[in-house]
Amino acid sequence: MRTKFHKNLDELKQQLLVMADLVERAIDLVIAAYGNGDKTLCEEVLQGEPAINRMEREIDQLALDLLATEQPMAIDLRFIISVIRINADLERVGDQAVNIANRIREISTKEHHRLEVDIAKLGSLSSAMVRRALQSFIDADAVLAYSVLTMDDEVDQINADAFTALGAQIGDHPQLTMQALNALIITRNFERIGDHATNIAEDVIFWVQGADVRHNMLRT
Amino acid sequence: MRTKFHKNLDELKQQLLVMADLVERAIDLVIAAYGNGDKTLCEEVLQGEPAINRMEREIDQLALDLLATEQPMAIDLRFIISVIRINADLERVGDQAVNIANRIREISTKEHHRLEVDIAKLGSLSSAMVRRALQSFIDADAVLAYSVLTMDDEVDQINADAFTALGAQIGDHPQLTMQALNALIITRNFERIGDHATNIAEDVIFWVQGADVRHNMLRT
Repeated sequence: MRTKFHKNLDELKQQLLVMADLVERAIDLVIAAYGNGDKTLCEEVLQGEPAINRMEREIDQLALDLLATEQPMAIDLRFIISVIRINADLERVGDQAVNIANRIREISTKEHHRLEVDIAKLGSLSSAMVRRALQSFIDADAVLAYSVLTMDDEVDQINADAFTALGAQIGDHPQLTMQALNALIITRNFERIGDHATNIAEDVIFWVQGADVRHNMLRT
Repeated sequence: MRTKFHKNLDELKQQLLVMADLVERAIDLVIAAYGNGDKTLCEEVLQGEPAINRMEREIDQLALDLLATEQPMAIDLRFIISVIRINADLERVGDQAVNIANRIREISTKEHHRLEVDIAKLGSLSSAMVRRALQSFIDADAVLAYSVLTMDDEVDQINADAFTALGAQIGDHPQLTMQALNALIITRNFERIGDHATNIAEDVIFWVQGADVRHNMLRT
């Protein structure tokens, strides 16, 4: 028989997944906006931000209420702490989507296809990291969570390559300078999304395995 | 009479302040390294990272043990949750110091003084935000914490100005392109440090006032 407490934990998990849907939608929108130049999609991201912020507060409150009233132990305590952390990371992913949306509004969508950086690939990789991290949360799957950590290395490599390529391109085509700087900032925003996905994956491992894997040898 | 529980809370606070000292030291080192071109200071930052990561784990464990064994309520519960969050933000400030250190090692310290961006000012402002946020934590001072939130607007403005100025400078002096791109990335790293200081300040307000001020009207 399931206790009321475990029903409350399920409710907390469901709320976090609603939050995750909002954030994933924001990432999808900015990737589409960059790809097809439809800046109305950016407006949609900006308009969606208050709902994400509101959900963050509600989830935190729910988690705190559970901590205060139920005095959970061991894996349940780790679960609630993980939800609090994941919640904060999701909200910051939403912030990055807003930053990208604002940046896309600044750039000429005619020019940016000429830039030496594959934003579409970087976007889809960062987005895949977030999805996989959340799937590992849904399934309580530490192995899947570990696989997110290695994806982050690929994001870092794309960013390092983009830095060099954009620098060279500016040298050859100075008229692309502002476009290239905007693209560079967008790559850093996607990198931050990847960083948050990594944090989420680490929280899942902490919850499921009771091990704190941050900064240990398994990442390399 | 102070209880053992409250002594444990003090111990948790003291540990977080040791962590904070390590992180503040890392910020000071990269600001000095950028200013005087002494790249051995960057090495010191890189070598200091494992100690910061280790402390993060220890503080988290201490906080979790307190949650599990003491079942704290109300302000004590909020204090422990705030410590867990602040701890994560401090570790990420440390990560940014490492990123800046790596970036400084890439640039020519002869050229960068010609760049149209006041990294020293940005560094000292970000650093002041972290210090003030931590002071508000030490003093449980929500008013001081609120003042950190307004400092973030100034950091954002300096960054926006740097973006435009560096873009223009690249147009005029293409030979400075890679230097300028490195400087641009460094400004974003300092911006992230300011973001983390803001998070810390919000956690202090949450702890002291029991109000969740994130994303509310008081920020504008």
